Amino acid sequence: MKKVKFVLGIHNHQPIGNFDFVFEEAFQKSYLPFLEVLQRHPKIRISIHFTGILLDWIEIHHPELLDMIKEMIRAGQLEIMSGGYYEPIISVIPPNDRKGQIKKLTNRVKDLFGYDATGMWMAERVWEPTLPTTLSEAGINYSVVDDTHFKYAGLTEDELTGYFITEDLGNKVFLFPISKHLRYTIPFQDPQATISYLRDMATEDGKNVIVFADDGEKFGVWPETYRHVYENGWLEKFFTAVEENMEWIEMLHFDEVFDRVQPKNKIFLPTASYSEMMHWSLFPKTFKDFEVFEHELKEKNLFDRYGIFVRGGFWRNFMTKYPEVNNMHKKMLRVSQKLWTVAEKDQAQLSPAFDQLWAGQCNCPYWHGVFGGLYLSHLRHAIYSSLINAEKILDKFQPPDYPVLEVYDFDLDGRDEVLVETPVHNVYFKPMAGAAMFEYDYKPAAKNLLDTMTRRKEGYHYKLKDARIVGESQSNGTEGTASIHDLVLAKEAGLEKYLNYDWYERKSFIDHFINPDSTINDFFNSKYDELGDFVLEPYTLKNKVKNKDYVTLDFERNGFVRLNGKPVNLILGKRVTIYNTGSEIVAEYKIKNPGKEKLSLDFGIEFNFGLQAGHADDRYYYLTGGKPENPFLDSMAEIRDIDFIGLKDEYMKIDIQLKSDKKAKIWRMPVETISLSEAGFERVYQSSSVLLLWKAEFSDEWSVKINHRVETI
Amino acid sequence: MKKVKFVLGIHNHQPIGNFDFVFEEAFQKSYLPFLEVLQRHPKIRISIHFTGILLDWIEIHHPELLDMIKEMIRAGQLEIMSGGYYEPIISVIPPNDRKGQIKKLTNRVKDLFGYDATGMWMAERVWEPTLPTTLSEAGINYSVVDDTHFKYAGLTEDELTGYFITEDLGNKVFLFPISKHLRYTIPFQDPQATISYLRDMATEDGKNVIVFADDGEKFGVWPETYRHVYENGWLEKFFTAVEENMEWIEMLHFDEVFDRVQPKNKIFLPTASYSEMMHWSLFPKTFKDFEVFEHELKEKNLFDRYGIFVRGGFWRNFMTKYPEVNNMHKKMLRVSQKLWTVAEKDQAQLSPAFDQLWAGQCNCPYWHGVFGGLYLSHLRHAIYSSLINAEKILDKFQPPDYPVLEVYDFDLDGRDEVLVETPVHNVYFKPMAGAAMFEYDYKPAAKNLLDTMTRRKEGYHYKLKDARIVGESQSNGTEGTASIHDLVLAKEAGLEKYLNYDWYERKSFIDHFINPDSTINDFFNSKYDELGDFVLEPYTLKNKVKNKDYVTLDFERNGFVRLNGKPVNLILGKRVTIYNTGSEIVAEYKIKNPGKEKLSLDFGIEFNFGLQAGHADDRYYYLTGGKPENPFLDSMAEIRDIDFIGLKDEYMKIDIQLKSDKKAKIWRMPVETISLSEAGFERVYQSSSVLLLWKAEFSDEWSVKINHRVETI
Repeated sequence: MKKVKFVLGIHNHQPIGNFDFVFEEAFQKSYLPFLEVLQRHPKIRISIHFTGILLDWIEIHHPELLDMIKEMIRAGQLEIMSGGYYEPIISVIPPNDRKGQIKKLTNRVKDLFGYDATGMWMAERVWEPTLPTTLSEAGINYSVVDDTHFKYAGLTEDELTGYFITEDLGNKVFLFPISKHLRYTIPFQDPQATISYLRDMATEDGKNVIVFADDGEKFGVWPETYRHVYENGWLEKFFTAVEENMEWIEMLHFDEVFDRVQPKNKIFLPTASYSEMMHWSLFPKTFKDFEVFEHELKEKNLFDRYGIFVRGGFWRNFMTKYPEVNNMHKKMLRVSQKLWTVAEKDQAQLSPAFDQLWAGQCNCPYWHGVFGGLYLSHLRHAIYSSLINAEKILDKFQPPDYPVLEVYDFDLDGRDEVLVETPVHNVYFKPMAGAAMFEYDYKPAAKNLLDTMTRRKEGYHYKLKDARIVGESQSNGTEGTASIHDLVLAKEAGLEKYLNYDWYERKSFIDHFINPDSTINDFFNSKYDELGDFVLEPYTLKNKVKNKDYVTLDFERNGFVRLNGKPVNLILGKRVTIYNTGSEIVAEYKIKNPGKEKLSLDFGIEFNFGLQAGHADDRYYYLTGGKPENPFLDSMAEIRDIDFIGLKDEYMKIDIQLKSDKKAKIWRMPVETISLSEAGFERVYQSSSVLLLWKAEFSDEWSVKINHRVETI
Repeated sequence: MKKVKFVLGIHNHQPIGNFDFVFEEAFQKSYLPFLEVLQRHPKIRISIHFTGILLDWIEIHHPELLDMIKEMIRAGQLEIMSGGYYEPIISVIPPNDRKGQIKKLTNRVKDLFGYDATGMWMAERVWEPTLPTTLSEAGINYSVVDDTHFKYAGLTEDELTGYFITEDLGNKVFLFPISKHLRYTIPFQDPQATISYLRDMATEDGKNVIVFADDGEKFGVWPETYRHVYENGWLEKFFTAVEENMEWIEMLHFDEVFDRVQPKNKIFLPTASYSEMMHWSLFPKTFKDFEVFEHELKEKNLFDRYGIFVRGGFWRNFMTKYPEVNNMHKKMLRVSQKLWTVAEKDQAQLSPAFDQLWAGQCNCPYWHGVFGGLYLSHLRHAIYSSLINAEKILDKFQPPDYPVLEVYDFDLDGRDEVLVETPVHNVYFKPMAGAAMFEYDYKPAAKNLLDTMTRRKEGYHYKLKDARIVGESQSNGTEGTASIHDLVLAKEAGLEKYLNYDWYERKSFIDHFINPDSTINDFFNSKYDELGDFVLEPYTLKNKVKNKDYVTLDFERNGFVRLNGKPVNLILGKRVTIYNTGSEIVAEYKIKNPGKEKLSLDFGIEFNFGLQAGHADDRYYYLTGGKPENPFLDSMAEIRDIDFIGLKDEYMKIDIQLKSDKKAKIWRMPVETISLSEAGFERVYQSSSVLLLWKAEFSDEWSVKINHRVETI
C-alpha cells in the first residue's frame, strides 16, 4: 500500500502593541476553537508555534488554554516550535539578539509546558544563507520555509517530498519545505482536495514527507474563514478525512521525521521569503511590473513550468522603500549596541531592558504588504515605546553622562546625523536634509512624536479605482473563500482624493518659503508652490556646544528663494538649544538677506506630531489658556494671529506646546495615508501637521524664536 | 554641456596551480600589452586589480611590470583595488580568513606600490547581504558588482547611474554597479558604441557615474581577442576615442567618485552573482529549463523589460551539484578550524600555514560554468596540495596526538564520516555510502589521491551534438568577436561516446558484485550490471580501535546480491587498519553467506587514483618486478591472474602499490569527463580506475586481504 508522511504546522502570532480586542478576537475565533476541534480528534498531530507575545497574553487572559496545550502535549498530540520570542525578522537583528530571543522562547516553552522545543518558526520565512550559524548556536535543529525557497535554489516540485540539510560554514540545520499547493487547499478547498494531493504523493516506500504550515489566523480570523472553518465545519471534516485515511497517511511532528527518513539532500537557499513578500519588497514601479509579468506568464502558460525562475525583491529593501522602517531599524540597532556594551559587565540585571529591546524587534511594522504593518501607527508606536523603555531601564542601571551629543551616520545614508540625548528626551537632527528633527523621543511617555508616515506612492495604488467598497456588495459565504491576496476592497468611498504624495519626509523644524498664492488646501495636498531650497537640501553644522546644562547646535544653509522667477540668495541660520533638564527646546531662526533688497516672504516652519488617534475626544489642539480649541487632531484649519498652539493627548498624557515670539498664522492638518489592509484599502491617520507661517518683510535680517516643549499631563 | 563620469575597472587573475605557461601567455597577451597601450594614453585612468597569486608570479617572472605599475600609480593613472589575496568566494570562507586574505592583499599592495587600496574586487561578484560586516571590518570602503545584482533588488536600468550604499546591521560599504551594456561593448564592439552609450548617459549636472569593470583576460587572452584588441588596434582606438571626448567624459578612479557625487540611495542586494553564474549553479534539469525560458522570453519580447525578475540559482549550490566541491570546501573548513584553534596561541608563527590555507581557498576549482574550473584536475590539486601543506606546517608547529580518529559529519550530509590522520596520511571513510574511502591525502607529496571526478550529466551536454569541431571551420577575424557565452565548439570529434554517467562517486574501496556477463567496456561505460547493494548503501561501523600504533575500523554491511533474479543475503565485513608509521593500509574483507548455499560471485574492489596526467611517459602502471607495464594511465586493459599492481607518478614522486593475498583479474581504465572550457567541449582525464576482481566461490565465508601502500619515489 502506498503511504505518505504528513506534517501539519500552525503558527500563531499577534504583534506587540496590537489592541487587546484583536488578541481576544483571534483567541475566540481561531486559537481556541482550533484546539477545541483538534482535541476531539486525538489522532491528529499538530506542530504548533505561539510567539512569546501571544503566550504572555494567553497567560494573563486565558491561562486555561495553557493547561489545554499542556494536556495535548502530554497526549502526544502537540509538538511546540520555538522561534524569536517577539517574532523578529531574524536576519536583520544582531546575532546576540537572535540567540537571546530564541533561547527566551525555548525556555518559556520549557517552563510553561515542560517541553523541549528543537524547531524554529522562521518569521515571515525570511531566509538568508548565513542563518544556520545563528540557529545552530541557539540550539535549533530544524526550521520550516516555503517550497518556493527550494525552487529558487533550482529544485523542482517533485524533489520537495522530504526535508533537507542546509549549512553555513559547517553549521547545520534541517529545513522542511512547506507545500504551496497545500497552502491553497488548506483551509480553502474541500478536505478531499488535500487528501487527494496526499494520495498523489504517497509511494510504496512511504518515505515522502509532505508539509503544510501556515498562520493559525487563516483558521477563523481571516475574512469569512470563521464561518467556513468552524460554523460550516471545514476543520472537523478535514480532521475526520485525515483520520479516515490513517492507514496510509502517517501524521508526524517535525521532530519525529528525523528518525524515520533520511534527509533528501543538502541544499543552499538564496535570500528568499514567500513569493508574495518578495513582490511586496519591490519599489512601486517594479512592484507593478512584476504583477504584469506574472500575469503575462500565466496567460502564455509559462508560469507553471518556469515560475521557479521568477522572483521579486529582497526583504531588506523595506528599509530602502520606507525610510520609516530604516529609522526604526537603526534606532533598534543603536539601543541594541548600547545594551550589549553595558551587558558585558552585567547581563542578568539588564534582562528587563533586553526584553524591551527584543519587543522592539517584532517584525510587523518593519514591512508592508497587503497587511497593514508599517502603516499601523499603534504597531510602530509599540516598537518605539519598547526601545525607549529599554533606554529608560538602562538610564536607571547605568546612566550615560547626559547630555549626550553624537554626530555620526545614524541611518547609514552616507551622511552624518546629529543626536542629542538627555534624561528627558532624544532629539535627532538631519543636517543633510533641511536640518530637520527626524526623531523626538519623549521618555516620560515612551513616545517618539516623530513616528510619522510620509505619503508615498504604493505599487498597488493604481488598483484603488477598481476597488469594491466594503458593504456595497457581499460575498455569499464560505464556498470558494478566496485567498486574501485576490481581494481588492476599499473600506470607504472616495479614497482617491487622499492619494497625495509628499516630496519630503513629514518631520519637524522643516523650513518652508511658500508662494503667497498657495492655500492651506494646496499645502495639505502637497501641491503648493515651494519657493525655497531649504527643505531637502543640506545645512551645515557650523558649530556645536555641549556643557552640562545644554547642547546648542548651529545649523546654517546658504540657499535660495525663487522670487519673480529669479533666485534670491538667503542665509538661514537655525540655532537649536536642547536643555539637559526639562523638555524645553529653543530654536532661534535668523534669515539674512545678503542682497539687502527689501523682501516679503511667507516663511513657515512645519512640525509633525505622530499621535495615535486623530479622532478622539481626549486628543485635541488647544490655544492660549488651555481650553480645547478643537477636539479633533485630524481636522484641517487655518488660525490667524496667534503665538501659541498646543496639542494634548490625554490618553498618552502628553502635552505639546509650540510658542513663537512673533504672532503667526497657523495651518494645521492631518496627514493620512491610503494603504491596503486585510479588509481592503483604508485611510490611516498618521500625524498632525502644524505649519507656523509668518509674513517676513525685511531687507537685512529677520528672526523668530520657537519654544518647543513637551510635558506630561 | 552634458557630461558623464566614467570608471574603467580591470580585474587580472590566474588561479593557484595554473600552469606557468598559462600565466606567461596571459602576461604576454594581456597584462603587459594592456598596460603598454595604457601608458601611451596618460589621460586614461584605470582602476586595476591583480590577485595576490598574480602579483607573486609577476614579482618572480616579470618584476619590471611592478615598476611600470608603480610609475603609472605615481602619474595618477592607476588605482589599485584590493580583494581576497587568493581570490576566494568571500562568502563561503570563514570570516577570520576573509579578513586575513583581504588584509594580506591590501598590505601587499602597500608594500609593492606604496598604495593604500580601499576598494575590493569581489571574486566572481558572488554577493551575500551579510558581507558588508566582514568588508568594513577588513577596511574595505567600496566594491563593484554587476548591475544585475541591483536589478534583482528591484531597481531599473535608469536608476543605476551612480553608486550606492549597502549595509549589514550598521556596517556600511559603497557599491558600484557594473554596466552590463558596457560588458558587451568593451572590447567586442566598435569604440564608438561605448562613446555613444556614454553620451546617452551624460546629463547637464554631470553627476551620472558609468562603470565598466571586467576580467583583464578579455583583452587578449580570450579566443581571438589578442588580434582584435592589439593587432587590429581596438584598445588604441578605444582609448583615443575616450581621450577625444574628455570635454564631457570625466574619467575617474572609483575612490575619486565619493568626493564628487553623493551616493544615489541605500540598497540591499540579494544573494547574486552575474546572471550566467546563477544559471550555471542550477542543477542539470533546471539548468536546461532556464535556457529554454530565457529563450522563450526573448522570442516573446518580454526579456528586456522583465528580465530583472528572472534569475537562476545560488552559488553555494555548486557544493550540492558537485560533491567534489563540497568535499574540498569541508576539507578547507577543517584545516581553517585547526589553524585558528592553534592560532589563538601564536598567530605570527603560523603565518605560512595560513598562507597555504588561503591559497587553498582560491575559487576557480570550487565551481564550474563554461570555463573549466572544477573539471581541471591541476586546479583541484593545487587546492588540496595547499591545504595538506597547511596541515604539514601545523604538524611541525604543534603536532596532534597521532593517530587521530574522529567520527563526525565531516561533509555535512547528515551522516557521520570516519577520519583517520597520521603523520603520513589522512584517510577518510564514508560508512553511509559503501564505507568507501573518499579522501586519501598523502602528505609527503601533498596530494589527495582521491581528488577524482565522477562523470555526471551537465545541463549543457545536450549541446554536444551541435558543437562545431575546432579547426573544421574558422571564424574569420575580429569583427563581431562574440562573447564567449555564445560559442559552442568541441576540441575533438566523437566526444559523445565519452558521455558516460556514473551512478556512484569514483572513490576507493568500493565493493562490487558484478554480473559475470558484464565486460570491462560495460564497466568503463558505467553500464554494467551491479548485483550487490554494497556500493551506495550504508555500512555499520561495528567497532573502532585506536592505539599509538594503529587505528582499526570494522565496517560491516548486511546486504544482498541478486542472483537469478532473487536476493541472496550476504554479510560483508571490511576491517581496515591504518598504521601510524609508514603508509600501509590493510583491508581485510570477509564475505559471509548465512544461507550456506554454494555461491559463485564476481566480487570486485574498485580503487581510483586521481593523478594529474593520463598520458605522460613518467606516469604509468607497473606489475610485479617494478617494470613499467604500460606508460599510459589512460589506457583501458584487462590483466589476469596477478596479485599486484602499481601506479607510478615520477613527476609527483608517488608510487602506489596495491597487493592482494589472492590472485585477481584487474580491470583498469581511465575516467574521463566531458566538460565545457573556453575553447569548447573537451575530454579531461580525471582518474585511473582500478578494479580488482575475484571469482569468489564459497558456501560459508570468503575472504581477501588488500595491502594499500603509497611511497615516495
